[in-house]
Amino acid sequence: MKQFGNYFNVRHFPEYPATLYEPSEYSLGLGGKRIRPVMCLMGNELFNDISPEAYDVATAIELFHNFTLIHDDIMDRAPMRRGMPTVHTKYNESTALLSGDVMLIQAYECVNKVRAGSIHRIISVFNKTARQVCEGQQLDMDFEKLENVALEDYINMIGLKTSVLIAASLQMGAILGGAGDGNAQHIYDFGLNLGIAFQVQDDYLDAFGDPEKFGKKVGGDILANKKTFLMIHAQDVATGNDKEELETLLKSDSTDKVERVVAIFKRCGADEWARQLKEKYLSIAFQHLEDIAVISVRKKPLEQLASFLAQRDY
Amino acid sequence: MKQFGNYFNVRHFPEYPATLYEPSEYSLGLGGKRIRPVMCLMGNELFNDISPEAYDVATAIELFHNFTLIHDDIMDRAPMRRGMPTVHTKYNESTALLSGDVMLIQAYECVNKVRAGSIHRIISVFNKTARQVCEGQQLDMDFEKLENVALEDYINMIGLKTSVLIAASLQMGAILGGAGDGNAQHIYDFGLNLGIAFQVQDDYLDAFGDPEKFGKKVGGDILANKKTFLMIHAQDVATGNDKEELETLLKSDSTDKVERVVAIFKRCGADEWARQLKEKYLSIAFQHLEDIAVISVRKKPLEQLASFLAQRDY
Repeated sequence: MKQFGNYFNVRHFPEYPATLYEPSEYSLGLGGKRIRPVMCLMGNELFNDISPEAYDVATAIELFHNFTLIHDDIMDRAPMRRGMPTVHTKYNESTALLSGDVMLIQAYECVNKVRAGSIHRIISVFNKTARQVCEGQQLDMDFEKLENVALEDYINMIGLKTSVLIAASLQMGAILGGAGDGNAQHIYDFGLNLGIAFQVQDDYLDAFGDPEKFGKKVGGDILANKKTFLMIHAQDVATGNDKEELETLLKSDSTDKVERVVAIFKRCGADEWARQLKEKYLSIAFQHLEDIAVISVRKKPLEQLASFLAQRDY
Repeated sequence: MKQFGNYFNVRHFPEYPATLYEPSEYSLGLGGKRIRPVMCLMGNELFNDISPEAYDVATAIELFHNFTLIHDDIMDRAPMRRGMPTVHTKYNESTALLSGDVMLIQAYECVNKVRAGSIHRIISVFNKTARQVCEGQQLDMDFEKLENVALEDYINMIGLKTSVLIAASLQMGAILGGAGDGNAQHIYDFGLNLGIAFQVQDDYLDAFGDPEKFGKKVGGDILANKKTFLMIHAQDVATGNDKEELETLLKSDSTDKVERVVAIFKRCGADEWARQLKEKYLSIAFQHLEDIAVISVRKKPLEQLASFLAQRDY
């Protein structure tokens, strides 16, 4: 993370027009865990010494990720991100829209540094993933309008919105490291399942996280009536008064909405259920990591990162 | 145009999720003159038989252009485009934002079909142009907030927002056709100056066009207080009552605003001035076309297209 930070924490855009590029730089300056680019480097290092190209693609991935954050925050009307005003809140929606656009274009500028022998394969993975992330965001918005979402549909949506980028980050790193098709598929599937585990934890933190550490307003998903893992489970298992209260709360904007929904989650055992679900996906992920044909000592850092991501409290 | 239409008028996106991809297809179905992709093909044909790769890049250019239209219409709050509701009006802003995003990604998928020997150069031109178009849109929005814009600044903005894409379309076609650096620069400059002439005509049509043929609401720029070529000239030369009335109208939303501003334009001779300005840029453009080192019969179609674009009434 530190190595990537040293490489990434520079200015990425021109000075002029400042009305366009200052918001872009502001967005990157909000920081974040840089998990996806680090995964690209780690996927690369699993097979070889980290190559300069892996840094270029890692940068493209982080720029792409920030592009999605800027645009998603507009769509979700999110006021805060990492404890700071979101781009459209600090500036305005049009500028945020356009800053996101140039960030996506800049991502492709980094991808364009990959050598001729790999560029088509990398762009192909990058584009497919980018499309899927957009599909995931659209499904996420569609689901907000539904009263009920099946767990299976939610997992599919989360797979698109979150997991494919984690999977593709690892895979693009691996491809640049010379991974064959079989290994490239296993590392992708490792990332895909890890991504679901990651999202279970994210949903968990929205309801049960420490606001100081989390950086976002706790209960944001609840206020937006998002069908998270916890909400879907609660809707599935709640009975009697809890079921009725949950239905009522989903239609209300009462000031104690978050508090009361969280209480129902607890009474339904949604917290414990989520912990087990996370372990299930984590274990599938670890099986795919196990199946990658490199000596096991090389896999240690990815094992550690995966465990960290699924247990983090921020 | 017909050849490109046959190639382009197919489905470009998957079926699912329809909430994302139907708006994208709707946007492409609104039609348009397909000028930019045709210019890519013509730039290619100036040097060689049209290659399959030129069709791929032409498609990328038209998808990119549609991406900018979808996003610009959101930012400009434009209700209509080519006589039909804009994407965000027919669907909603979030969906339009995301449909634009996937359209840009799809553009890069087409660019990715260019062979290894040319792909880096093509993506480099494509990205630089895409960034400039975003810069132009940002400056355009910035200028709406200013009371006065210098003609020079407006021409710079228009160069970015409109001309660079026309210039780059021709140039990318030329590069794929094997043009050397000198010729590639001349065709770029031909496009750049033609683009300014094109915009002068566009601004002219907004005020003086026939609404039936134009497809957009006449006076849209005036209602949005856009500093067009006509407005900038009128602000420069209007005196006495006209000057005062123009200042007042710029701050008003009165129902006869368009009519009265157009009348001032006429009294200032802005229509005739615009015609001369258009001719000036057209003549610089033709000089660059002249300077391209291919036999002159090959240049005829570009000459005709340029004349058509600068004289069109729709």
